[in-house]
Amino acid sequence: MPVANNCCTERQQRLWDSLKALDPPCDAMLITSRPNLRYLTGFTGSNGVAVVSALETWFFTDPRYQFQAAQEVTAKPRAVKGQLLEHVAKLAARHRWRRLGFEPDHLTAGQVELLQSKAAKSLRFVARGGVVETLRMVKSDEELAAIERSVETNSRALTAALKRLKAGMSEAELAAEIDYQMRKLGAEKPSFDTIVASGVRSALPHAHPTRAKIEPGVLLIDMGAFQDGYASDMTRTFFLGEPESKMARIYGAVLEAQLAGIDAVRPGVKASAVDRAAREVLKAHGLDKAFLHSTGHGLGLEIHEPPRLGKKEGTRLEVGMAITIEPGAYVEGVGGVRIEDTVVVTAQGCRVLTPTPKDLRVL
Amino acid sequence: MPVANNCCTERQQRLWDSLKALDPPCDAMLITSRPNLRYLTGFTGSNGVAVVSALETWFFTDPRYQFQAAQEVTAKPRAVKGQLLEHVAKLAARHRWRRLGFEPDHLTAGQVELLQSKAAKSLRFVARGGVVETLRMVKSDEELAAIERSVETNSRALTAALKRLKAGMSEAELAAEIDYQMRKLGAEKPSFDTIVASGVRSALPHAHPTRAKIEPGVLLIDMGAFQDGYASDMTRTFFLGEPESKMARIYGAVLEAQLAGIDAVRPGVKASAVDRAAREVLKAHGLDKAFLHSTGHGLGLEIHEPPRLGKKEGTRLEVGMAITIEPGAYVEGVGGVRIEDTVVVTAQGCRVLTPTPKDLRVL
Repeated sequence: MPVANNCCTERQQRLWDSLKALDPPCDAMLITSRPNLRYLTGFTGSNGVAVVSALETWFFTDPRYQFQAAQEVTAKPRAVKGQLLEHVAKLAARHRWRRLGFEPDHLTAGQVELLQSKAAKSLRFVARGGVVETLRMVKSDEELAAIERSVETNSRALTAALKRLKAGMSEAELAAEIDYQMRKLGAEKPSFDTIVASGVRSALPHAHPTRAKIEPGVLLIDMGAFQDGYASDMTRTFFLGEPESKMARIYGAVLEAQLAGIDAVRPGVKASAVDRAAREVLKAHGLDKAFLHSTGHGLGLEIHEPPRLGKKEGTRLEVGMAITIEPGAYVEGVGGVRIEDTVVVTAQGCRVLTPTPKDLRVL
Repeated sequence: MPVANNCCTERQQRLWDSLKALDPPCDAMLITSRPNLRYLTGFTGSNGVAVVSALETWFFTDPRYQFQAAQEVTAKPRAVKGQLLEHVAKLAARHRWRRLGFEPDHLTAGQVELLQSKAAKSLRFVARGGVVETLRMVKSDEELAAIERSVETNSRALTAALKRLKAGMSEAELAAEIDYQMRKLGAEKPSFDTIVASGVRSALPHAHPTRAKIEPGVLLIDMGAFQDGYASDMTRTFFLGEPESKMARIYGAVLEAQLAGIDAVRPGVKASAVDRAAREVLKAHGLDKAFLHSTGHGLGLEIHEPPRLGKKEGTRLEVGMAITIEPGAYVEGVGGVRIEDTVVVTAQGCRVLTPTPKDLRVL
């Protein structure tokens, strides 16, 4: 009879299955990324590491999180004093591991140095980046439900904040209002710094809200919430006063591109094909050079996670992926338009989660 | 006549002077920490690296930040395509550098790998952690003015939020209210996740606000703002209804400890001496075991920066350091008290920036 594998969850087991397929084989994998740690063990605190092997998952945190870890973590938590990575080195020595996988983007040079100084000389460290992130691309039903709740809070927060928009308000004040409504409606916090860009500033894709009063013309709002740990993301572009015909045309083109992007989403297509679908519409309107970023990105425990919906992304979409579709067009000195929804890939194509209307709206 | 040194600012020059004193000597130092980059070059964007040498400072960012970098950066900015660190490797090759300093806590294992793969085999990487952080401990007058503005906004936000406190409000709602008021008063954002902990939850030093209604008894609020990039930090503990005599005694002891901590601050004393001054007062009240953290920390471009005011910290205080003084006492199942001000070390001792009163207050 095989040894019972009581302490591994399905997610830990899937990680191990992915790792087994990679060469050289590792005896265990060290997890240091916070979202990956939350995904694999449930831990939501700020200081923890996990080590996943074929038969067991270890979890280390400091005494501040002893009680919390006991409640949250799907592995036996150890609350230890001193550097957590020293305990990982001891664990490796005790098991005489020869190769330990690690996350190269989530371990600093200083941490590598510490690990190497505490571990046996014979222990080799093997970079295994992106393995957990790949597993995270396809969401479970519970995860999709959390994303949907986050999306709904986000849309309700926009509606509530716009009711409080008044003459003389600054971009920063409207951003503060949005974040406040989000929190009142159940979000933990914004999933990124809310963008409110008015007038010509809307032509900067990553504009930060300024203390300047909201100008007549374009009002671009890009906002997202974290709720129950999961992100939402939405952009809407409004007009304060009737838009100039040029901006109305740009709006129509971006909306057409966004709908074409959504229409291209289905299981089996490459992420790059969705990007192409949106880009070609903008090209037909002479706006391809005004589209300065990619068409979208995955989201979940992080606001940006794989897959990226960019020109060169070969990842094929799968049922259960949660992604944004957000083409835009930015004309320096004039203004910018971006329209963004959060969608989920389904067997038939996709389901748009974002309920906020997106026809041209004059406030 | 010596070569004119036009492109180095006073801060870049001070970094270089610190580096020169360390062995082995480096030909240049790579800066990847965002606050260190802001400190040394003025850049506030999310993607940039700097390389500081004896005679010149180089700055690399991506095309998104071309315009912003040209406005902000006190070095000739290069907006480049591809990985910024590849350009650093090319720069090192062009100058035939043999040793490049780097920040071990702000470079990932993956980035080290990339640098090593692109650089000449002969280039050695030398860890130079904490050098910029040490320079940042003593603030300039402009920095102190920014911290003072941040402290004032933070205190005004607390006053405004408490006016809106009402029966049935949850901890999370009050936290949202605090953050909203902060932003309305000029802060960019909170400098950390605002803590609102009521009743027995106040005994957890790092409690996150819950959806639970604020309970009668203790109400502990720990909050800070970022304004013009600089942090503030304050904790106040209030009572909803007259405190039980035990909690009132704890409050008195913590306040006495906090005043003793402030009284111990002066140039030349070790940071550990300030911690000891606060700790001894709590010990006299039989509360030393209830004081679960250190007495304070530096703050500036980050909410936590050196020096730490802990038991073993040997750093000596200097005029111009900005620090918090925040002893606390936490009794499981009963409640906790923490009182925290932001202070600046002066020639005579220190100046308490936080204007919010701290006598026991029943709301």
